[in-house]
Amino acid sequence: MMAKPQLERRLIGALLRIPFQTIVAGIHDGLTEAGYHDLSPSHFVIFQHMRSEGIRSTELAERAQMTKQSMGYLVSYLESHRYVERTPDPSDGRAQLVRLSQKGWEVARLSTAIVEQFERDWESYLGAERMGQLRSILRELSAIMDAG
Amino acid sequence: MMAKPQLERRLIGALLRIPFQTIVAGIHDGLTEAGYHDLSPSHFVIFQHMRSEGIRSTELAERAQMTKQSMGYLVSYLESHRYVERTPDPSDGRAQLVRLSQKGWEVARLSTAIVEQFERDWESYLGAERMGQLRSILRELSAIMDAG
Repeated sequence: MMAKPQLERRLIGALLRIPFQTIVAGIHDGLTEAGYHDLSPSHFVIFQHMRSEGIRSTELAERAQMTKQSMGYLVSYLESHRYVERTPDPSDGRAQLVRLSQKGWEVARLSTAIVEQFERDWESYLGAERMGQLRSILRELSAIMDAG
Repeated sequence: MMAKPQLERRLIGALLRIPFQTIVAGIHDGLTEAGYHDLSPSHFVIFQHMRSEGIRSTELAERAQMTKQSMGYLVSYLESHRYVERTPDPSDGRAQLVRLSQKGWEVARLSTAIVEQFERDWESYLGAERMGQLRSILRELSAIMDAG
């Protein structure tokens, strides 16, 4: 974020934001075209941080760096729209896991396909070498962030 | 966004999201530490897309890919918290421009300084050559997206 300095030289924040938001918008458009009209980018975080076996809502909140309350609201919305379902946690009968429904998995698969199409488009534009550099540098950065 | 496939290989969407959200969280933490407790990441979009001479709210909405109504809500919030002010548009007396207040400029400058610190940290971690490659590749991608 910044105002005047951006005019001269884009900082890394803006440079990352532009392609990231292009992907988010592309997923949203693709899902809407496929008939999923009740999903907004704010819901994507659930699919991003999901686990195939299910995950506790509190852990989802931690992984997404959101408050429990905000995450609870998102999960309830997706549950009422049948993208996720709640199931007892086998490791603790009093706790519940959130997991994707069949419809939720369809959204996850379609989203993956959309992102893979961006990867192919960008690779054909940048060339395989520079696309490989981009992936490798971002992976290196992600590694220190996961650790930190 | 996606669930199971991410376990094997992170797609470009996730690879971009991690450093981008690290920067967003870093700006938010830095602003909070500096005493700006009434700003959330949803407000950053205003500072990102601001112009030094001011900008119309409708254009802000377009640039941020938001509805006019959502943008109006953000601008009103920032106005009531004195980060922005409204002023008549010199090119059209019936229209208004939104521009940063002095307090808003302080936030913009601090945010820029925080992002510049990330740039220095990442450069010292990746090395100047790879950081330069990252910037150059992202700039190339941004260029097609601005055009598209």
